[in-house]
Amino acid sequence: MIQAARWLRLPAEHPFGLAALPYCSYTAATYTGGYRVGVAVGDHILDLTTASDRLMPARAHLFRAGSLDDFLAAGDGAWTQVRDGLTGWLSDEQCRPAIEDLMVPVGQASLRLPFTVADFVDFFASENHAANAGRIFRPGAEPLPPNWKHLPIGYHGRSGSVVVSGTPVRRPCGQFRPPGADAPSFGPSARLDFEAELGFVVGARSHLGEPVPASRFAEHVFGVCLVNDWSARDIQSFETVPLGPFLGKSFATTVSPWVLPLAALEHARVRPPSAAADLLPYLTETTHWGLDIDFEVRLNGSVISRPPYATMFWSPAQMLAHLTVNGAAVRTGDLYASGTVSGPEPDQRGSLLELSWNGTEAVPLPDGTSRFWLQDADELTISATARGPGGGRIGLGSATGRILPAVRESPAGKD
Amino acid sequence: MIQAARWLRLPAEHPFGLAALPYCSYTAATYTGGYRVGVAVGDHILDLTTASDRLMPARAHLFRAGSLDDFLAAGDGAWTQVRDGLTGWLSDEQCRPAIEDLMVPVGQASLRLPFTVADFVDFFASENHAANAGRIFRPGAEPLPPNWKHLPIGYHGRSGSVVVSGTPVRRPCGQFRPPGADAPSFGPSARLDFEAELGFVVGARSHLGEPVPASRFAEHVFGVCLVNDWSARDIQSFETVPLGPFLGKSFATTVSPWVLPLAALEHARVRPPSAAADLLPYLTETTHWGLDIDFEVRLNGSVISRPPYATMFWSPAQMLAHLTVNGAAVRTGDLYASGTVSGPEPDQRGSLLELSWNGTEAVPLPDGTSRFWLQDADELTISATARGPGGGRIGLGSATGRILPAVRESPAGKD
Repeated sequence: MIQAARWLRLPAEHPFGLAALPYCSYTAATYTGGYRVGVAVGDHILDLTTASDRLMPARAHLFRAGSLDDFLAAGDGAWTQVRDGLTGWLSDEQCRPAIEDLMVPVGQASLRLPFTVADFVDFFASENHAANAGRIFRPGAEPLPPNWKHLPIGYHGRSGSVVVSGTPVRRPCGQFRPPGADAPSFGPSARLDFEAELGFVVGARSHLGEPVPASRFAEHVFGVCLVNDWSARDIQSFETVPLGPFLGKSFATTVSPWVLPLAALEHARVRPPSAAADLLPYLTETTHWGLDIDFEVRLNGSVISRPPYATMFWSPAQMLAHLTVNGAAVRTGDLYASGTVSGPEPDQRGSLLELSWNGTEAVPLPDGTSRFWLQDADELTISATARGPGGGRIGLGSATGRILPAVRESPAGKD
Repeated sequence: MIQAARWLRLPAEHPFGLAALPYCSYTAATYTGGYRVGVAVGDHILDLTTASDRLMPARAHLFRAGSLDDFLAAGDGAWTQVRDGLTGWLSDEQCRPAIEDLMVPVGQASLRLPFTVADFVDFFASENHAANAGRIFRPGAEPLPPNWKHLPIGYHGRSGSVVVSGTPVRRPCGQFRPPGADAPSFGPSARLDFEAELGFVVGARSHLGEPVPASRFAEHVFGVCLVNDWSARDIQSFETVPLGPFLGKSFATTVSPWVLPLAALEHARVRPPSAAADLLPYLTETTHWGLDIDFEVRLNGSVISRPPYATMFWSPAQMLAHLTVNGAAVRTGDLYASGTVSGPEPDQRGSLLELSWNGTEAVPLPDGTSRFWLQDADELTISATARGPGGGRIGLGSATGRILPAVRESPAGKD
């Protein structure tokens, strides 16, 4: 395990130690010229836009625009070189003069969406989540849909609604059918939910008509972020047959400001449950991309769930292989998410749908209140750590959002 | 009706006369410096990038990048000014010297995707199509889903797979379940289909959390294009429950190279069938945006269907109001399509699913062959005209694609 330079005063167990090094796009009050690419180093952000100008001028153009877009597109050669460079600068005492003035405390930085989201796809890769949904919505029937163990089910979401952690989330209005009613009502969603997910950020594009095999996952996917796929269950329920979720999901999707590169997850790789299944060749992994990542979900500061990502049936390499097997291309900035992460235990469920069993079992909070669904002013935070070198944990940061009340006036067609 | 300048020798009934003036992004062999924005004038393209430099310098920056993106974002003031300018230049004999050297025959131009597609949404707005799909897939049940007359059903598609007319379409591979089989097979789709649709191109963005009322449709939507939402019915069928279409649609979506501005459709506006329905206020139109547009679908040159857009139940203004009622924002370059356009008559159906009644009734072709589904090397072309001034028809151009055979090797996970 590489040691951080002493002047950094970086505790060995810090989640943003040298084994993590996630990237962000940020600015600070003292900056002129807008956003820069940053790297988390403990409780500070290193200004990589300036550092690369000084220490790696051949790659500095990748960071000049201040978002991750150019770096993502540059491919795995650049990803490795830059990470190796960072590790060197931060462990070599002699690099101190070149970077010491480029550190900003995280608390003084303003972080934005780190990359431009191209297509957004959401999968449904947790067997526990899919089976819970089946038990809730189709009681008495087989919990999993017939296709579930043959392919990673997914659908396209709205990339224009992806927002960075900290962005307030307005409770959506829409149509839903109250129990027993014939016609739908219109109003604020009464069943607002979160979904704790892991997101995969595509760097290097592929080409239309050319499937990407699972074995090439790490050539195309740059890294991971945390995702909260906010869901309005009542709106979703009324609209979803026959074409799937639409407005019940499209009002907001929150991502963490940090993108942790795959290189940081080498020690977290595990065999996913799908490795034991009888799969078509295109879904068969030769090296496994299950991930030992522990999620934590907090509602107003209290932990309400600890979903274990290692239980996810389908790996992100299988998701990529499936997403492209029909010839669809991936582009720089494509984001695909795992779907809700739920473990087998009741306190490992990654949504209120499951935690409250569709609004039938109250989820208690330490302040004496309880929740079936999210209330206005509730703050929901997803955080996670992954297994790192030497048995330690490295951080993925967090994705948080607070619920704003709905705008109650029904939008008129007649204004 | 404004007369074209005599030197243009533009027949009054030409579909690309002065009442149309659709925009494109194109280049020509004689050009240096890449793509330009063009306008169809009869059988020629006017180089608007250069013409605006000469005749409307205050707006010329909108066309310099050679795609429609900057022009779309500029909003309806710019849209009106540029269209008025074009109409003036092309009807005024004195403008001849300023633009005569800027005309390129369409046949000598290479047209690309005219704008950068942000989010792609596909609706399901034809009652005839939705009812046909219901009769085919749920025989004996109510043809329309319970939500169908309450809201325009839609879902998100893959914007990265949108290609311009003329791009070959590779037959996709995927999983599907042969009749009677327990497990799915993998291979080339045997039920490849088209869907004839109209697409709506968003110009001016809205803001997250702020619904766009139907009455503001023309402030946000710039114009229309033709869309072929290619569909692999066997892949779609196996994957679609519970989250909707995914790989059955995401391999390719073809659009026409021309974007016809809404201003050209003033004479085509009609009352849509939904005007007679009991709708929630946000879906109530005060001015109607049904459209008298006649589609024509040709397979290898022979007309196989003539879908009438005027029969579409939901208008594009209603679709926009619904798309944003939950607070989702629209962005410049968003494309939302109508869904398959099918009229009440058998020869007005906008897909082979309906024309062959899910592969049970052969569709005869003049060469003596027939089709249930698309074969390799088949060429499918969608074209359309709209009612214009003085009872004439104006053109929307066409969207065409030829089927390439599948790449038969199963992509290995082990290469």
